[in-house]
Amino acid sequence: MLTIAEHQFSSRLFTGTGKFSNSQQMLSSLEASGSELVTMAMKRLDLKSRGDDLLGPLLESGVKLLPNTSGAYTAKEAILAARLAREALQTPWLKLEIHPDPRYLLPDPIETLAAAEVLVKEGFVVLPYVHADPVLCKRLEEIGCAAVMPLAAPIGSNQGLQTRDFLKIIIEQSQVPVIVDAGIGRPSDAALAMELGADAVLVNTAIAVASDPQAMALAFKLAVEAGRMAYLAGLGGQSIAAIASSPMTDFLNAGA
Amino acid sequence: MLTIAEHQFSSRLFTGTGKFSNSQQMLSSLEASGSELVTMAMKRLDLKSRGDDLLGPLLESGVKLLPNTSGAYTAKEAILAARLAREALQTPWLKLEIHPDPRYLLPDPIETLAAAEVLVKEGFVVLPYVHADPVLCKRLEEIGCAAVMPLAAPIGSNQGLQTRDFLKIIIEQSQVPVIVDAGIGRPSDAALAMELGADAVLVNTAIAVASDPQAMALAFKLAVEAGRMAYLAGLGGQSIAAIASSPMTDFLNAGA
Amino acid sequence: MLTIAEHQFSSRLFTGTGKFSNSQQMLSSLEASGSELVTMAMKRLDLKSRGDDLLGPLLESGVKLLPNTSGAYTAKEAILAARLAREALQTPWLKLEIHPDPRYLLPDPIETLAAAEVLVKEGFVVLPYVHADPVLCKRLEEIGCAAVMPLAAPIGSNQGLQTRDFLKIIIEQSQVPVIVDAGIGRPSDAALAMELGADAVLVNTAIAVASDPQAMALAFKLAVEAGRMAYLAGLGGQSIAAIASSPMTDFLNAGA
Amino acid sequence: MLTIAEHQFSSRLFTGTGKFSNSQQMLSSLEASGSELVTMAMKRLDLKSRGDDLLGPLLESGVKLLPNTSGAYTAKEAILAARLAREALQTPWLKLEIHPDPRYLLPDPIETLAAAEVLVKEGFVVLPYVHADPVLCKRLEEIGCAAVMPLAAPIGSNQGLQTRDFLKIIIEQSQVPVIVDAGIGRPSDAALAMELGADAVLVNTAIAVASDPQAMALAFKLAVEAGRMAYLAGLGGQSIAAIASSPMTDFLNAGA
Repeated sequence: MLTIAEHQFSSRLFTGTGKFSNSQQMLSSLEASGSELVTMAMKRLDLKSRGDDLLGPLLESGVKLLPNTSGAYTAKEAILAARLAREALQTPWLKLEIHPDPRYLLPDPIETLAAAEVLVKEGFVVLPYVHADPVLCKRLEEIGCAAVMPLAAPIGSNQGLQTRDFLKIIIEQSQVPVIVDAGIGRPSDAALAMELGADAVLVNTAIAVASDPQAMALAFKLAVEAGRMAYLAGLGGQSIAAIASSPMTDFLNAGA
Repeated sequence: MLTIAEHQFSSRLFTGTGKFSNSQQMLSSLEASGSELVTMAMKRLDLKSRGDDLLGPLLESGVKLLPNTSGAYTAKEAILAARLAREALQTPWLKLEIHPDPRYLLPDPIETLAAAEVLVKEGFVVLPYVHADPVLCKRLEEIGCAAVMPLAAPIGSNQGLQTRDFLKIIIEQSQVPVIVDAGIGRPSDAALAMELGADAVLVNTAIAVASDPQAMALAFKLAVEAGRMAYLAGLGGQSIAAIASSPMTDFLNAGA
Repeated sequence: MLTIAEHQFSSRLFTGTGKFSNSQQMLSSLEASGSELVTMAMKRLDLKSRGDDLLGPLLESGVKLLPNTSGAYTAKEAILAARLAREALQTPWLKLEIHPDPRYLLPDPIETLAAAEVLVKEGFVVLPYVHADPVLCKRLEEIGCAAVMPLAAPIGSNQGLQTRDFLKIIIEQSQVPVIVDAGIGRPSDAALAMELGADAVLVNTAIAVASDPQAMALAFKLAVEAGRMAYLAGLGGQSIAAIASSPMTDFLNAGA
Repeated sequence: MLTIAEHQFSSRLFTGTGKFSNSQQMLSSLEASGSELVTMAMKRLDLKSRGDDLLGPLLESGVKLLPNTSGAYTAKEAILAARLAREALQTPWLKLEIHPDPRYLLPDPIETLAAAEVLVKEGFVVLPYVHADPVLCKRLEEIGCAAVMPLAAPIGSNQGLQTRDFLKIIIEQSQVPVIVDAGIGRPSDAALAMELGADAVLVNTAIAVASDPQAMALAFKLAVEAGRMAYLAGLGGQSIAAIASSPMTDFLNAGA
């Protein structure tokens, strides 16, 4: 079981609500994924009513909602969005996203740390989305973030674990859960992140844009389980030379 | 369902019997893998008796045995081994392996094609282990091989899909099933091969040398299913720039 | 010509003084490299005398010295070191390095920005060593840094351009020179950085630890020139399929 | 100096004549490259006259011509083309290319070995273009080929050293020169091939399709020299952790 801020998760696949072609498809995909933590941008909420066709069913499904501050350019904007989210959804959980760059949506390390410091003090359970920067992750852990969410590649790029070697350092050094976020394009990417020792992955685009999102959600579910299982089962090392699995044999004499 | 030579397989994970620390571990791992096709070197068989502790349980388990010619240096040796295997195991199925190089165990294209021509004519169901050489795979298909087994990396190296771009060409061009063999070190490698469109993968070393082979076998089972499912579900393309899954929002006005 | 803070460089290969087995080897290697900017840690200076066997010849060689703050854990320590360096060497140029982590020596984004803000105001020509974080690079540019020095891989790891895709974004977005620093292990890595459009590279370990540092320095010199020249000459794109350089011919009829 | 079939080359960059927009551009690029061995398809020759605008100047330039059999689908066609080439150009040197696949132009291992056996016996200096297949390369060496030319990636794809790990095995095992051919898209690719220990590289498309082919030719010249020099100078190993080039310092006390 994965524990974040004293909350236990049996699924290590976190998902999001963006880019699905309609709400029904989103809901059936999230169900197929087995995900217990689902992030959503504030814009997607009709904050005045829980009765809309998205939020109501999501809440009924029993998943934990993780509002995010996507769209915030500065710490100040993110803090304001966080407070609105807490009030609207009655949850202190927050995915902190601050990305001033409209093209690559890469996170701002300075604003993110500044906002995290304020929000942690205000009692938020802060999960910051950051570059795969081991020193920044360590600082976010030290000021009380509940987990860190380093990126694999730019959001929505489906490019896989471009930051692999830095993710390994983050995993090695972190005392809080490491959730690999952004850029995971295939189930094999998710499996690899888990094999490296990540505690969870967050996948949204790759599921939402698949031809069959529900089947893709299930594929990611299996891949995350496979990767975690392999990590626990002890992966063998790599070697340059071949090592025969069917060693040189004396079969030519075997029938003699 | 995968069909090879009119035989149907519901599992796309093929395995082998090498390198396990004992027979019991091997049998429980093969069971966990769900594999329906298991390759074994002739040496491992006590050809005079089906009552040994390996072959008997294997046959009882209902898996299809795929004897291989590992250890053969030439077409002549491989053909002889194939005939012995058919007689001993009463199966025309054969994994054709000819690797004269003791260090990297890389297959010989010339001897392999020559042996395959003879063995196909003799009624064998030939599955040749080859370099990821698209032209060679095409020729093996044309002379009647039931499938092709291009390598991902040297046998036992656990290095993953080093030949990725050539595997894609082979998959694109092949009219017979493509089974990615050798070098698959992690479940994520197996998932990736399936995502690329491979029909099956063969994994042995990575399972056998894991700290917990049974758990690793199950991890590979899930990963292969995940990869196949993702292939069918239609993977999205990659992009250089980010594409927001939580698009730029007007949340700051949302509560107004 | 590369211009940084109104200073012109004809060589785009920057070097350092660390890890050489002796001073003579260092000096001959720096000469072979053609480098016009050489970084050195404060420790290496005998600050009371310019007559030591390292600093004297370096100053005589005409290269521009770039003192660095390696060893600083915080902005405060780095600022103090910078002031000492300026006084000792009579240069406002500074490579700002703050890495609290003793194992990977990865830079701290928060302390680096904080120190840079102070030092720029004090008139330093600040070249900060940073993670390949495009947003951080942009902020450092905006507060007046003369260039940015994103890392390719951990210092001294010789692992090459692990951060390649992020370096491309930094190069695309930056208005100040981009100097790829740390992790460049081979001349081909340096050439690739230049082909991607980097303005310069800094190489130290790979030269210093070579069996023949002087020859390696010359190899890096040529590789940097090659990479820059290729960038200017307009590299062709990549394609999946082959495109014949010797197109399908009618040579069989040619002699008829 | 590189020696192939008792002929010495001071340049390790081999080139070709395909894809240039005109003959003058080709000639000036070849001159800038410093190449002493230039391959050309038979089609490009006006076999009845040495006075055409391509062959005449090429011959006058003093480079060694390496006719190739591009366009041949079978050993038989290649052998015929080789004989025509020898007669027309009065050279026994031959780049043996047999690629039946029109899309990827990948070489046929079976036909190539069969043709090479005949041509070696007829006194040709055979340089076969092959997949990066270590066993095939060894067989070609054993029957008397003067060198082997394994591919880096499909011809004209500019994708670089996709076959890197197999090239390393070929280089380790080969007793004849190894010339990396096809797919080299950037000077950094050429440098890397040389750093790995290749004896030479053949580059055509990447030079011919550059915006400025002459400058690109010079860039490749420098890169090949850099890579060779680095190979001889003894490249350092890679490490996971950082190793400070500017070691932890006591500079804070230095000025006291």
